[in-house]
Amino acid sequence: MTIFSKIIAGEIPSYKVAEDDEFFAFLDINPIVWGHTLVVPKQETDYIFDIDDARLGRMMAFAKKVAAAIKEAFPCRKVGMAVLGLEVPHAHIHLVPLKHEGDMDFAKKVSNPDPARMAETAAAIASHFKPNP
Amino acid sequence: MTIFSKIIAGEIPSYKVAEDDEFFAFLDINPIVWGHTLVVPKQETDYIFDIDDARLGRMMAFAKKVAAAIKEAFPCRKVGMAVLGLEVPHAHIHLVPLKHEGDMDFAKKVSNPDPARMAETAAAIASHFKPNP
Repeated sequence: MTIFSKIIAGEIPSYKVAEDDEFFAFLDINPIVWGHTLVVPKQETDYIFDIDDARLGRMMAFAKKVAAAIKEAFPCRKVGMAVLGLEVPHAHIHLVPLKHEGDMDFAKKVSNPDPARMAETAAAIASHFKPNP
Repeated sequence: MTIFSKIIAGEIPSYKVAEDDEFFAFLDINPIVWGHTLVVPKQETDYIFDIDDARLGRMMAFAKKVAAAIKEAFPCRKVGMAVLGLEVPHAHIHLVPLKHEGDMDFAKKVSNPDPARMAETAAAIASHFKPNP
C-alpha cells in the first residue's frame, strides 16, 4: 500500500482538496509554491502511462477542475502540470499555480510551510472546486 | 498563428516524431535531455485546461503512445510529463525520458544539440510509434 493509498484511506492525514469516486486531490506536503496540489487515482498504479486511456482521460478532466479551483484561490497566469514519478510508486499529477517562468522548479520549496496556512490553503481551493453536477 | 502552428503547417522545419488528425509531436529544439519531445494540438489553444475534456483525453492518449515510443528509443525508468505554458501561447506537453530524479529540470539544456543527432533521435522515436490500428 503506497503512502498515497494510506492518505486516501485516511490512515495518514493530508490537506485534502477534493475527491470523486476515482480520484483524490490534496496539497503537496513540501510545496514548491503555495497552492501546489497533487492529483492521484484511488486505484494504485505506479506509472501514469499504464493507466488505460479512458481512465487517464477522466483523471485529466478531474485535474482540470482542481486546476480551475487553484486558479480561483491563487490568482496566476496558468496552472502548470507535471508528472515525474520516480519517488512514490503511485501516479500523481503535480498542479502548480504559475505566475512566472521558473515557478515550476522542484528544487525550490516553500520553507517550513505553516500547518495553519496549509489548512487554509486546502480549504480555499476546496471552496472553489466544482464537482460534476 | 503560433510558432507551433507554423511548424505543424511545415512553414518552419521541425524534427517530427508523430502525428494524427488532431495532434503533432516533434523534438523540443532545446532539449533538456535527449528524447525530449513536445506534443501539441493542431487546433491552437493557449491554455491546456481550456481544451474540452474529450479532446484533452484524446491528447493524453496520443501523448501516451508517443511516450511509449520514447521509452523504446531511449530506455529510461519512466517518461515524465510537464505543461508549463508561459512561453509559447499554444498548449504543449513536454515528454522527457527520466533516468534519475532531477532529469526534469528545465534549467538544464543539452548544449548545442547536433542537428544530425536530432534527426536520428526523431527517427528513432518515430520508428517505435504505434498509431492506432
